[in-house]
Amino acid sequence: MVDAKDAGPRFEFDRDTWVEADGEDRFRAEVSPGWNIGSNPNGGYLASIALAALARSVPHHDPLAVTAHYASRVSPGPVGVVVDVLRTGRGLSTVVARLVQEGDVRVQVTAAFGDLSAREGPTVVTGERPSFPPPEACVPVDPSIPGVPEIMRRLDMRLTPESAGFAIGHRSGVAAMEGWVRFADGREPDTGSLVVAADAFPPTVLNLMETPWVPTIELTVHVRARPAPGWLQCAFRTRYLIDGDLEEDGELWDSSGRLVALSRQLARVRA
Amino acid sequence: MVDAKDAGPRFEFDRDTWVEADGEDRFRAEVSPGWNIGSNPNGGYLASIALAALARSVPHHDPLAVTAHYASRVSPGPVGVVVDVLRTGRGLSTVVARLVQEGDVRVQVTAAFGDLSAREGPTVVTGERPSFPPPEACVPVDPSIPGVPEIMRRLDMRLTPESAGFAIGHRSGVAAMEGWVRFADGREPDTGSLVVAADAFPPTVLNLMETPWVPTIELTVHVRARPAPGWLQCAFRTRYLIDGDLEEDGELWDSSGRLVALSRQLARVRA
Repeated sequence: MVDAKDAGPRFEFDRDTWVEADGEDRFRAEVSPGWNIGSNPNGGYLASIALAALARSVPHHDPLAVTAHYASRVSPGPVGVVVDVLRTGRGLSTVVARLVQEGDVRVQVTAAFGDLSAREGPTVVTGERPSFPPPEACVPVDPSIPGVPEIMRRLDMRLTPESAGFAIGHRSGVAAMEGWVRFADGREPDTGSLVVAADAFPPTVLNLMETPWVPTIELTVHVRARPAPGWLQCAFRTRYLIDGDLEEDGELWDSSGRLVALSRQLARVRA
Repeated sequence: MVDAKDAGPRFEFDRDTWVEADGEDRFRAEVSPGWNIGSNPNGGYLASIALAALARSVPHHDPLAVTAHYASRVSPGPVGVVVDVLRTGRGLSTVVARLVQEGDVRVQVTAAFGDLSAREGPTVVTGERPSFPPPEACVPVDPSIPGVPEIMRRLDMRLTPESAGFAIGHRSGVAAMEGWVRFADGREPDTGSLVVAADAFPPTVLNLMETPWVPTIELTVHVRARPAPGWLQCAFRTRYLIDGDLEEDGELWDSSGRLVALSRQLARVRA
């Protein structure tokens, strides 16, 4: 966390999600083109701007459940962030942030905030960490290749050989995408940045078919633990592509081998 | 659909989710105690009231992605429903409804509406319909038994023998809940009622441990097809119960063997 903008956030993610107060329950921010997929800002990045405003508006530390509905396209440039605190509770707060451009709500993010360090109750885990090759045995996504999205300059992403095949025309035939991700400039993951990792990987359906763009309609991320420093191990899959609509289910694990987030989005294959 | 309240909706679900206009973008409704779990209205039922107001506010027929955040407890009785249309588009509309009691937003429901009959694009389905005994070989949930929630009078629910064991102390040890559901009064399912089926089953964790109440923090339902008349076949599972927080993932299939909805909620085990 940074105390003043003059000091300047050290990392790209913090600089590009910076929000400044602009009246009561209002902030302003600047959508950077540095997180674009093609000409559209990444949905996880946009949600992170909303979360940055929400984090200033609640007494709790961690976004536990984050839902973003993408109503219309956001352009790089200035954006207003309007915050609405629905409830501040002892254990949980429920808050809404809307990204506004030209008077229209373009994205709405609703989040339940709490403190993961204070959650107490039973633990029973039966899910297993995905088993695939370590980062050094995976395929780095090279941002210097034409057509690779701008966001890949901000991230260090490694795809499993099976997942990466689509890029050279060897589609696996399985709607899955697996690999590792971390920020390229060394910023460590935290509960406020996991939503970027949950939405940054190439779409699962690229391993089924060519498609230029897979816009997200709705994205929900459940943050289940504070991530340890280092790589995030991520696995996404789609089981139901129906009439062009698909769910993409994700699991994010940290370098200590803990599940840190579950994600699901409803997206659409655009011809 | 019913044209006037005077005529009176024929079915309980339609009567108990009835909304009346109360000014621009405002409706009023009555939360019936008939859908209670203990003393709390079922979360899926509350979301259905919001959806009823939203359906009146958009040109589209089907809620495709529905997210409910439960900020605080709703009491049976009068409730205000405040609608906010974020965007009306040709293919999709994004809308928000807030249930308000005593001036507080108790539940916020955000939905992307569209028309499932007009969705066009590729279909690739690899998920499989759950395999378990038919309704007549399952265990009916008997609402006359003390402690069985009031909502079970409104529903005809059958649990698989393995899932139902918790009720007589034979917990399966697997955080899953499987079975069949339909409205008790013969109302057929539609895309507006699936959110009730997605939240009506006993919590998965009852097959792990005793717990009096598992409140929902956030619930998202992706409606993927219009259900055929008849039973809904439903399977829920939990893989990550961590410090009392758990996800509950659901699949809903209709009587024709089609997947009609995917659901996920973040909930909490209360000691």
